[in-house]
Amino acid sequence: MEITRNIRELIDLALTEDAAGGDITTAATISGNGEGMVSTAVARAKEALVLCGIDVFTEVFKRCDGRVEFSKARKDGERLEAKDEIIRVTGPTPALLTGERTALNFLMRLSGIATLTESVVKSLEGSGTKVVDTRKTTPGWRYLEKYAVRVGGGSNHRFSLSDGVLIKDNHITASGGITGAVKRARDYIPHTLKIEVEVKNPNEIDEAIKAGADILLLDNMDRKAVESAIEQIDGRALVEVSGGVTPENIKDYAIDGVNFISMGYLTPSARSVDINMKIEIP
Amino acid sequence: MEITRNIRELIDLALTEDAAGGDITTAATISGNGEGMVSTAVARAKEALVLCGIDVFTEVFKRCDGRVEFSKARKDGERLEAKDEIIRVTGPTPALLTGERTALNFLMRLSGIATLTESVVKSLEGSGTKVVDTRKTTPGWRYLEKYAVRVGGGSNHRFSLSDGVLIKDNHITASGGITGAVKRARDYIPHTLKIEVEVKNPNEIDEAIKAGADILLLDNMDRKAVESAIEQIDGRALVEVSGGVTPENIKDYAIDGVNFISMGYLTPSARSVDINMKIEIP
Amino acid sequence: MEITRNIRELIDLALTEDAAGGDITTAATISGNGEGMVSTAVARAKEALVLCGIDVFTEVFKRCDGRVEFSKARKDGERLEAKDEIIRVTGPTPALLTGERTALNFLMRLSGIATLTESVVKSLEGSGTKVVDTRKTTPGWRYLEKYAVRVGGGSNHRFSLSDGVLIKDNHITASGGITGAVKRARDYIPHTLKIEVEVKNPNEIDEAIKAGADILLLDNMDRKAVESAIEQIDGRALVEVSGGVTPENIKDYAIDGVNFISMGYLTPSARSVDINMKIEIP
Amino acid sequence: MEITRNIRELIDLALTEDAAGGDITTAATISGNGEGMVSTAVARAKEALVLCGIDVFTEVFKRCDGRVEFSKARKDGERLEAKDEIIRVTGPTPALLTGERTALNFLMRLSGIATLTESVVKSLEGSGTKVVDTRKTTPGWRYLEKYAVRVGGGSNHRFSLSDGVLIKDNHITASGGITGAVKRARDYIPHTLKIEVEVKNPNEIDEAIKAGADILLLDNMDRKAVESAIEQIDGRALVEVSGGVTPENIKDYAIDGVNFISMGYLTPSARSVDINMKIEIP
Amino acid sequence: MEITRNIRELIDLALTEDAAGGDITTAATISGNGEGMVSTAVARAKEALVLCGIDVFTEVFKRCDGRVEFSKARKDGERLEAKDEIIRVTGPTPALLTGERTALNFLMRLSGIATLTESVVKSLEGSGTKVVDTRKTTPGWRYLEKYAVRVGGGSNHRFSLSDGVLIKDNHITASGGITGAVKRARDYIPHTLKIEVEVKNPNEIDEAIKAGADILLLDNMDRKAVESAIEQIDGRALVEVSGGVTPENIKDYAIDGVNFISMGYLTPSARSVDINMKIEIP
Amino acid sequence: MEITRNIRELIDLALTEDAAGGDITTAATISGNGEGMVSTAVARAKEALVLCGIDVFTEVFKRCDGRVEFSKARKDGERLEAKDEIIRVTGPTPALLTGERTALNFLMRLSGIATLTESVVKSLEGSGTKVVDTRKTTPGWRYLEKYAVRVGGGSNHRFSLSDGVLIKDNHITASGGITGAVKRARDYIPHTLKIEVEVKNPNEIDEAIKAGADILLLDNMDRKAVESAIEQIDGRALVEVSGGVTPENIKDYAIDGVNFISMGYLTPSARSVDINMKIEIP
Repeated sequence: MEITRNIRELIDLALTEDAAGGDITTAATISGNGEGMVSTAVARAKEALVLCGIDVFTEVFKRCDGRVEFSKARKDGERLEAKDEIIRVTGPTPALLTGERTALNFLMRLSGIATLTESVVKSLEGSGTKVVDTRKTTPGWRYLEKYAVRVGGGSNHRFSLSDGVLIKDNHITASGGITGAVKRARDYIPHTLKIEVEVKNPNEIDEAIKAGADILLLDNMDRKAVESAIEQIDGRALVEVSGGVTPENIKDYAIDGVNFISMGYLTPSARSVDINMKIEIP
Repeated sequence: MEITRNIRELIDLALTEDAAGGDITTAATISGNGEGMVSTAVARAKEALVLCGIDVFTEVFKRCDGRVEFSKARKDGERLEAKDEIIRVTGPTPALLTGERTALNFLMRLSGIATLTESVVKSLEGSGTKVVDTRKTTPGWRYLEKYAVRVGGGSNHRFSLSDGVLIKDNHITASGGITGAVKRARDYIPHTLKIEVEVKNPNEIDEAIKAGADILLLDNMDRKAVESAIEQIDGRALVEVSGGVTPENIKDYAIDGVNFISMGYLTPSARSVDINMKIEIP
Repeated sequence: MEITRNIRELIDLALTEDAAGGDITTAATISGNGEGMVSTAVARAKEALVLCGIDVFTEVFKRCDGRVEFSKARKDGERLEAKDEIIRVTGPTPALLTGERTALNFLMRLSGIATLTESVVKSLEGSGTKVVDTRKTTPGWRYLEKYAVRVGGGSNHRFSLSDGVLIKDNHITASGGITGAVKRARDYIPHTLKIEVEVKNPNEIDEAIKAGADILLLDNMDRKAVESAIEQIDGRALVEVSGGVTPENIKDYAIDGVNFISMGYLTPSARSVDINMKIEIP
Repeated sequence: MEITRNIRELIDLALTEDAAGGDITTAATISGNGEGMVSTAVARAKEALVLCGIDVFTEVFKRCDGRVEFSKARKDGERLEAKDEIIRVTGPTPALLTGERTALNFLMRLSGIATLTESVVKSLEGSGTKVVDTRKTTPGWRYLEKYAVRVGGGSNHRFSLSDGVLIKDNHITASGGITGAVKRARDYIPHTLKIEVEVKNPNEIDEAIKAGADILLLDNMDRKAVESAIEQIDGRALVEVSGGVTPENIKDYAIDGVNFISMGYLTPSARSVDINMKIEIP
Repeated sequence: MEITRNIRELIDLALTEDAAGGDITTAATISGNGEGMVSTAVARAKEALVLCGIDVFTEVFKRCDGRVEFSKARKDGERLEAKDEIIRVTGPTPALLTGERTALNFLMRLSGIATLTESVVKSLEGSGTKVVDTRKTTPGWRYLEKYAVRVGGGSNHRFSLSDGVLIKDNHITASGGITGAVKRARDYIPHTLKIEVEVKNPNEIDEAIKAGADILLLDNMDRKAVESAIEQIDGRALVEVSGGVTPENIKDYAIDGVNFISMGYLTPSARSVDINMKIEIP
Repeated sequence: MEITRNIRELIDLALTEDAAGGDITTAATISGNGEGMVSTAVARAKEALVLCGIDVFTEVFKRCDGRVEFSKARKDGERLEAKDEIIRVTGPTPALLTGERTALNFLMRLSGIATLTESVVKSLEGSGTKVVDTRKTTPGWRYLEKYAVRVGGGSNHRFSLSDGVLIKDNHITASGGITGAVKRARDYIPHTLKIEVEVKNPNEIDEAIKAGADILLLDNMDRKAVESAIEQIDGRALVEVSGGVTPENIKDYAIDGVNFISMGYLTPSARSVDINMKIEIP
């Protein structure tokens, strides 16, 4: 993956918050500040997981010390079992000790999202429905978490407010109605974008389609309402279902005619998976 | 809570990643860019929760537009039920629509951590053991997540590598042994800090105490091993237990003589709680 | 317009590059550092123009000194004649003198783009073709220059590489052909985005439409080739024309069936219009 | 040229505004994210130009991917004809595709300024008058644009408000008169700086010279007034002419005795020259 | 004084390095986080001093908490005696406690420089020689320390490498000689700048004057050599003396004909003066 | 030493403040911008000193130009005599000339602190008392100056407000008394930290010890009062002495039973030592 300026900024924030005044345990215990001492450490999965974030993991160490090197790295997207080696890190001992926690914190969270996404995507296998993420991401982590969803086999919804038009209930309330909102949007936005409208009932579905919406977001409808909506829409727009979807109930919504299920749960509520890193005894 | 420079930077990262090119849906649908239009929106809990992060929530809107104002705000630490109002936000409509998701993303995550912490702390009520967090926090969020643990009634372990000495297995491997590591640390560190050593067996406990460790970290021991360690230590050092502790099994470790249980689970694996925000129909 | 983090950063860069060591002329000539002295200055158009950037203009002064105030400001999009007043600025005299050049440099450039755009848009009045900008913007100024195009009555193409898919000749060369590229893109991108393909001849038009392109970019074709392409496309995709379009020749391309003409000339080659600012003699 | 911190910041702003969420077209179309694929692209002039900005051009690609390499680069200041090769860029294909537009946007603008400057400087050949720029530069681009003026053979006026004293009409209005202003400036400023005063008529010329001005700026005078001013000044100060000077009328002002003509037109109103970049078919 | 972007950055660096993880003593001891508690603190001189930096002092507290207010502030440049009140600070108690040390660290250092400068300037009273500073300033503090020199009655040499030409021995070594260096500089630099040359003996003085130097820097000459140099120069250039000047020996160099004595000692070697701040018992 | 993000930021601030508009003397005098010219310069001590900051010194040049290389570098902590070589710097001549002053300004200040600290530490040799620094550091320089104290053989007090609890008179005033403050702190702070209390008389000593303070800070007591306090404390807490300690009077406080003497004088009032750098004549 590409290490963008924003990711570099986030890594710097993370390293600074963890060692603004240096790593005193490492400085104190490795005699002579550990200058000259070189070690190798191995990161290992402590449970089954889909790996994600290996380039961020290595970037953290590189920003600690440009001399750190890596070998036998597994790739993002690989499925690993408990005890599998992930990567070997060789470099100045203090850099390994100082960067370890931050590097693992990135890797554990991103792999957690990829692992969860993969299991959800698998549960829909055979259906024609795609799992997509939302903008409910951890602030500062948008790019990373959306990447983890892709690594896990999921698809991305719009990246941000700047690159997709989703007219939600609050916009409709504030703008006076679906018809006007869609019309103004068509006139305003780049011609490279589609228009999506959140609808809650048959009247809104009707109005949105007439106004020219490209995609309808069926929000918080139960299975029955979704089925009836699909019939009403009849292929005139793409269909996205959203609201209260969990790994447990997602299969209920993978109905024929539902193109996408968006799932706020994927990113903020994924559990970090367990990975550790041990310095090898020379 | 205090909005430090790092929090401001994180908020800016978050707003930038969500709207680097502006909020095109809002710009398109609110006629005339919504200039002059003012709305009020209400944030509400959608499940029971311990509120945390209200000052970050308001700061997000202030950075979108200095004219946004707030009323009827609940305080960090309050227990809310589903449907309870959290805060009323009044200001230029575009600012409310653009800031909503980022503000909620902060509030939902921090409240999720506070809510989880509170339930864990409660389960130890009556014991003499404190629940403490770890450095397994979301990169960029150290300060915020440690704050959320306190709001939930938990205690903080060291904030960073700069303000606590914890000699872990990797340090011991790299430095050649507990005795020398503790001795060098005592000489090197500010006199305001204690020294904690990770120990795995009776020999290490013995060596650490003799070397003058102030705190022992019993890592990945089962209940029996912990009980025997406490007997061996016999009050000569504070005792922290760590490793594989979950909300389900934590009570097993709240043994008399265990001063602290540190729990990596608290911060990276807390589920975001559900909160929404709706613009009121005028 | 919204003053985003990026615009604030650009303003800070500009003020820093112009006065890293302070404004020594002002400090030297206004006795006692001008503390306590307050003046009013008036900005005036020195030629006919479409105003654009008034919020950036005021932000520059606010960042110099929070006490600067404004009155009688004209709005972005207004057409002004030479000598028309634009805004009155009242505040500490040193702030007016120090901020003047930077504030005017923003206003003159943005108004120059809006003015040029308006004249181009006017020349297409009555046709069904829209004028759109490109990514040939001044580095650091993307958001501002795209805003100026809208103020001048033009439309925006995609904002950035993150929010639109435009498969150009270099992508086709590198990826091995249109069909595969479009197919992979449809699978990869958010469902909120359309796919645009650059085509140079009838074969490519045919391949792109079959692959499912939503928009075709006819690059560097003469009028005849464009007419023949429109006939071939026959409404199966939106049509954008690009390449070598100038204010002088644009009318030649406003053919029935051309939905958009994109014009690299608009942003980097617009001439700054002339605006000055004079302190009023008390 | 030296890539200073400010230029790095500007490049980062530019890359971020163009790809905050990544380059989705490239990611989508180059299979497997293009990992391992390496290409060579060639940048070529599409019209006659004076090249400027080659180091910024290469820096953009380096910041995209440290592995990008360059060959056959022409140097800043060289005169090129249409179709001339400028540089060959070899590296990971995604980096070439993602960096292309930003790199070209820098190169086209800076070369545009150098090209315009050279033609203006040429038109004064044989006279004793130098062409100098002003502070009417694109905000964020001061250093780059002043560099481009030098590459085109022009000279620089002061870089910023911190490194030159130019007492203009607004300073005179605010400070109460030329004599006092010059006197206070002489006392206040570093002894390494000269003092320049803007004058509009014979009285002001007289007062400025008596006050000890080193340089007089004759603002917005016609040719006759300039000639008469030179006679009056009679070598007692350097003479700069300014105001309304264009490439067309500049020769009118290159009178014997005029040391400098400053030209606001040079930087904000130079047209970007056309340069493209094509990936070579392997 | 003006709080520029660089000063804000320095203040932010300072507050972050002192409280990245918050002020735990204050949080712990002021019950309930001290919300609602308001105090007044008084800063007092603990020795005689020339005050400098009051605007930085207040800015530190404002950045801690926007509600802090100030009264009875003395002005930069005032002479104070031990026990004199400097300013009263009223605001939320935690903000006072957290900002105190950083605010005082700025004030004590800047006042130390102003105090030292004033005593040196005084010792030259009656002579025609000015005391000027150098570029030997604390990295990050250039603007502040040069300001403090002015507040103490001293004069500034050039602010930075960008706004003054000082051809030193290393330049002469590298460029091949004084004559060529001065000639090239005259051609290259803005016409608003003078040229200064470091000279070490009569031959160099002669060469520098012939080459057209405006100012000569007599480096590390003893009093006798300076006197002889002045005679040789005979008013054809301004004269600056430098090298090994201390508060003790400066009078030896204030010879008739020496326009400036530059003193590296002023900024890096000034002792911080003692100032404290006490919260008033309510 | 480790070059952290904060140090990189400080170096960037320093280089920017010294050459925002480039180094015009170097550009002007080294013909052809010195491209291709390579030189070697040697830094030498001009007085006896303890070297400190060599890694910052080299980092400054690396940030100017990545091609600069170093040889024969002495190490931090080495004692040098006047005329001793410190390091040889080889690289593009312009980079050497531009970076010289900033690099030296860092090295001279840090070596000054190390040199002063060493002499103070030496004067206590044989006693059981350690010399420690304070938070009276130059804003922006906390990490660097604390490092210099260690290099000089001194010890560090807490790094910042986040990693040590020191309950001072202002906290006691604001919180209502020692007993409550210590109790609340014990409950609030990480268990890895000790609690230090500032005391001024026997009553406060008594209260602080009863409340459970780990360390007592005897502030501004004379030798007699210190002796009596030690007797009263009788080993129940560590003892730190502070207030008005200078290199001259420090021996008076190195009484048996005083564990630490903290000395605000060490960092802000250390004189920069003299170091120069000369380009070798080829």
